[in-house]
Amino acid sequence: MRLRNKSWAKPLIKANPDMISITPTGMQGKWQEKFADNQPLMLEVGSGKGRFITEMAKANPHQNFIALELQETAIAYILRKQVELKLPNLHLILGDGADLSEYFAANEVAGLFLNFSDPWPKTRHEKRRLTYKSFLSQYENIMAEGAPLQFKTDNQGLFEYSLVSMNNYGMQFDLVSLDLHKDKRVEGNIETEYEHKFSSKGGRIYELLAKFKH
Amino acid sequence: MRLRNKSWAKPLIKANPDMISITPTGMQGKWQEKFADNQPLMLEVGSGKGRFITEMAKANPHQNFIALELQETAIAYILRKQVELKLPNLHLILGDGADLSEYFAANEVAGLFLNFSDPWPKTRHEKRRLTYKSFLSQYENIMAEGAPLQFKTDNQGLFEYSLVSMNNYGMQFDLVSLDLHKDKRVEGNIETEYEHKFSSKGGRIYELLAKFKH
Repeated sequence: MRLRNKSWAKPLIKANPDMISITPTGMQGKWQEKFADNQPLMLEVGSGKGRFITEMAKANPHQNFIALELQETAIAYILRKQVELKLPNLHLILGDGADLSEYFAANEVAGLFLNFSDPWPKTRHEKRRLTYKSFLSQYENIMAEGAPLQFKTDNQGLFEYSLVSMNNYGMQFDLVSLDLHKDKRVEGNIETEYEHKFSSKGGRIYELLAKFKH
Repeated sequence: MRLRNKSWAKPLIKANPDMISITPTGMQGKWQEKFADNQPLMLEVGSGKGRFITEMAKANPHQNFIALELQETAIAYILRKQVELKLPNLHLILGDGADLSEYFAANEVAGLFLNFSDPWPKTRHEKRRLTYKSFLSQYENIMAEGAPLQFKTDNQGLFEYSLVSMNNYGMQFDLVSLDLHKDKRVEGNIETEYEHKFSSKGGRIYELLAKFKH
């Protein structure tokens, strides 16, 4: 969802260049420099206000996390949290998921998360969905062989679409859950802000785990 | 579901050899002989009491339909209806879905339906599910290139399993519906007995349309 502009956002971003990179094109293959330790690099595309990626970084100290977000205000919320938490394994990118191949080198990413992406329900907006084939191609370019892609949504139409799109692209499915919060096979699910609110009202969360076949 | 034996079943089957074939191994490539006209051959694996296949045959006079069912009592119900209706484009087989390659020739089947198959929820029974890879291999052997497989179920676990199984087998998905009866993309859905009862209580029906990539 689109957030209202905040006057504190731009100054905060400008003041913390060590914690956030802006449309970074010279960083391919060098992201490990941003972290305390050289560890598997996990990327969330479309991090919103960052509850998921922040909790993931806390829960998995032996992985490095990057939150990518297109909206300045949203990523400023993540940054505000990170300024306080100073997690050594979290870095932020203000940038576009359509340009991932410019930000990352081939095989650089060990895992990718898509959480509650904008469903863009109108057919004429299909190309904007983060599971459209042009985005899948970006993910494939930067992900290591066999690296998992985890996709969560509450939007039935987007999930139906994404199952077909990812299958048609040639991705291999490892797990489909049609009601994640009641699924006994899945442990340690970390919720986004949106997921937490939606699910507490009784809505179903869908999840797909898949990988590219290289 | 398993039906109670009926005393009229065996005699009825014996009396109508023109309408029903029993574990037919000499019929490969010859099924068109059983019908009034030479038309695309559509097969339902696991027809239960036959509401779906009977309605399909009525609604699609320019296709030929075969109802395959393992349970004698169930197929006797279909036969009892067919004795009355005498649909020229419907034939019955009492037989096992695991033996399809013995019943049909390669490319003989132009479309295949799986409706509300037994979910066999226990992991140790996985091999009995009609979307397990050994069954998919049988379907692939007998289906024409690009022929559609339509799979419907109300069972969430079986649907989750089948999406992964069919994807892993290399099938191409054409449509996924997570709530068939509310899906505006799908027209002319014909309900099984079970589907009708389940759906009228508000339950969700899932559907997958897919094909084998030859």
